[in-house]
Amino acid sequence: MTSAILVTGGAGYVGSHTVTTLLEKQSDNPEFEIVVVDNLANAYKAGGQKKPEPLRIIEELTKKTIHFYELDISDREGLSRIFETHNIECVIHFAALKAVGESVEKPLEYYQANITGTCTLLEVMRKYGVYKLVYSSSCTVYGEPTRLPIDEGHETGRSLTSPYGKSKYFCEEIMKDLCTSDKKWKVISLRYFNPVGAHRSGRIGEDPAGVPNNLMPFIAQVAVGRLKELLVFGNDYPTVDGTGVRDYIHVEDLAEGHVKAVKLFQHPGFSGFHAVNLGTGTGYSVLQMIAAFHKASGREIPYRIVGRRAGDIAANYADVALSHRLLAWRATRTLDDMCADTWRWQSNNPSGYKTS
Amino acid sequence: MTSAILVTGGAGYVGSHTVTTLLEKQSDNPEFEIVVVDNLANAYKAGGQKKPEPLRIIEELTKKTIHFYELDISDREGLSRIFETHNIECVIHFAALKAVGESVEKPLEYYQANITGTCTLLEVMRKYGVYKLVYSSSCTVYGEPTRLPIDEGHETGRSLTSPYGKSKYFCEEIMKDLCTSDKKWKVISLRYFNPVGAHRSGRIGEDPAGVPNNLMPFIAQVAVGRLKELLVFGNDYPTVDGTGVRDYIHVEDLAEGHVKAVKLFQHPGFSGFHAVNLGTGTGYSVLQMIAAFHKASGREIPYRIVGRRAGDIAANYADVALSHRLLAWRATRTLDDMCADTWRWQSNNPSGYKTS
Repeated sequence: MTSAILVTGGAGYVGSHTVTTLLEKQSDNPEFEIVVVDNLANAYKAGGQKKPEPLRIIEELTKKTIHFYELDISDREGLSRIFETHNIECVIHFAALKAVGESVEKPLEYYQANITGTCTLLEVMRKYGVYKLVYSSSCTVYGEPTRLPIDEGHETGRSLTSPYGKSKYFCEEIMKDLCTSDKKWKVISLRYFNPVGAHRSGRIGEDPAGVPNNLMPFIAQVAVGRLKELLVFGNDYPTVDGTGVRDYIHVEDLAEGHVKAVKLFQHPGFSGFHAVNLGTGTGYSVLQMIAAFHKASGREIPYRIVGRRAGDIAANYADVALSHRLLAWRATRTLDDMCADTWRWQSNNPSGYKTS
Repeated sequence: MTSAILVTGGAGYVGSHTVTTLLEKQSDNPEFEIVVVDNLANAYKAGGQKKPEPLRIIEELTKKTIHFYELDISDREGLSRIFETHNIECVIHFAALKAVGESVEKPLEYYQANITGTCTLLEVMRKYGVYKLVYSSSCTVYGEPTRLPIDEGHETGRSLTSPYGKSKYFCEEIMKDLCTSDKKWKVISLRYFNPVGAHRSGRIGEDPAGVPNNLMPFIAQVAVGRLKELLVFGNDYPTVDGTGVRDYIHVEDLAEGHVKAVKLFQHPGFSGFHAVNLGTGTGYSVLQMIAAFHKASGREIPYRIVGRRAGDIAANYADVALSHRLLAWRATRTLDDMCADTWRWQSNNPSGYKTS
């Protein structure tokens, strides 16, 4: 029976790009199936289609098949059936709610989806003897940084301002304790900095519901005329131009990081819980992002400086040494690539997947 | 329809004493029913009985009826039926796994039981418009104290060494975020120091499964001859006699704290999340406890000093000012009371409820 990689939340933004990269690189690997579980809470499925748009398009692009199950990972029985149907070798776990602002409004929904979902997945994995997990974590777990760049030894769990961030931190702690209790577990928690960009085809990309929470999709929607102007929250931070600095990373680089993490499981000596930053190591300010996107798109990006937003920090960028050393991975795509690819996706699909 | 107090985990140690005190003090209160939900993970039910032993005995002692449901709080439908059957006014939430050492061995079980259980309870409460909750928390959330006595403003969540302690901390954060998101919630998180003792009747008490984790039941089982000797972990701490100092509190005092918390819900201005220490404010060392128990029981307590135990701290005792001010509560029972009542329970029931 062909071995399989289970991707939870595989129809989402980072999930769909990781599925694409896994399939694109499949010739480098032993043969495996891709099994996606997604509850479609944040993914679009066109009427009459069996699969959500991103997966349908990935199958077109790669000429490969994805096994798709519309399922919530807190459905223990449904999840168990998938483990019985496929020979699952490892899991890449993206399924989670991820809007920081919404998490403050709906904490219980976030904790249930993210913590209970993860615990149920871990239980079912253990039941079927699957102990390898790549976890979709976030630099949010570091809270307000006490040093820059942020390395993986930086304290986590302090000054976390949203249930979203706390849920990521809590899940890391749960998996850490699980790895301590049972040496069979191998968990790689990938702490993303700021994923942006889109697949180079321009056919898969970020498709946020409602008004985007993150800078890049907001800029892109302003550039394409879907939103009127960008609000820049504060220009009095101690940074290069006073606006907030973040470590933006191309989603295809991020996806490759997951493929490298899966490869690491093949090393016989590898075990336990490991957190690894995925970033470029370089920070860009909001104004630098606007300028780069203007250059890539040729469009004006009207913006307005307003006051700081509660909970925002001045600057944040990754120490990427561990990702180089442990995963033999590094981000190779430039800021211009990030902007060009985002623009290709956004201009081809002004309303996201609904227009594809 | 008579209003009801739902007590989850009401057949456990602190739960059963709280149920007793609620029923004993019922004439001071408007009329209410007591509804207990317990999965009996840690409570004894005799063959042929409908109710677990502690509840059966409480009904005998108080001549009042307890509504009992054998149910796990993660059973959403079962829990919902209880909210439909009774007019639940508020919830006292004890149901949790609580053995620190076991939690290190079985982290996933602890996180599922304690976090998922609590989230499901909160969801069901909200569904039925019940927003008042007393939560069974622990001084464990403070980790290693940076100051003594520990007040409620002391940082929580740092240097937590067990999944048990983390699960209590995570649940507090979840409830805090919930209270921030929706002003209808009123949550009082009672942070217990070291509950000991037993009901003055000697008929209800602590009945740990297997070898006790905590000092007092261990001493009691040595005194009664069920265990051979007590191991004292370290006598080189910077304390009065070198052994660890803890804030022991009589379980009947603790139970009264819960009754006071429930009363606080009647204040119209009361809302939001409040953490309150329940302790005496006084610490006793292991050797002082042994001496007091010897005095109360007349029995020798053979003990042996061994090395420190990983994760143990030197001293820990509560700042009790907030409990006095907010709950109008204070512990009144002495160390001699704690020992005498423990001894009465232990000597009447050398094997716990099985011998009752």
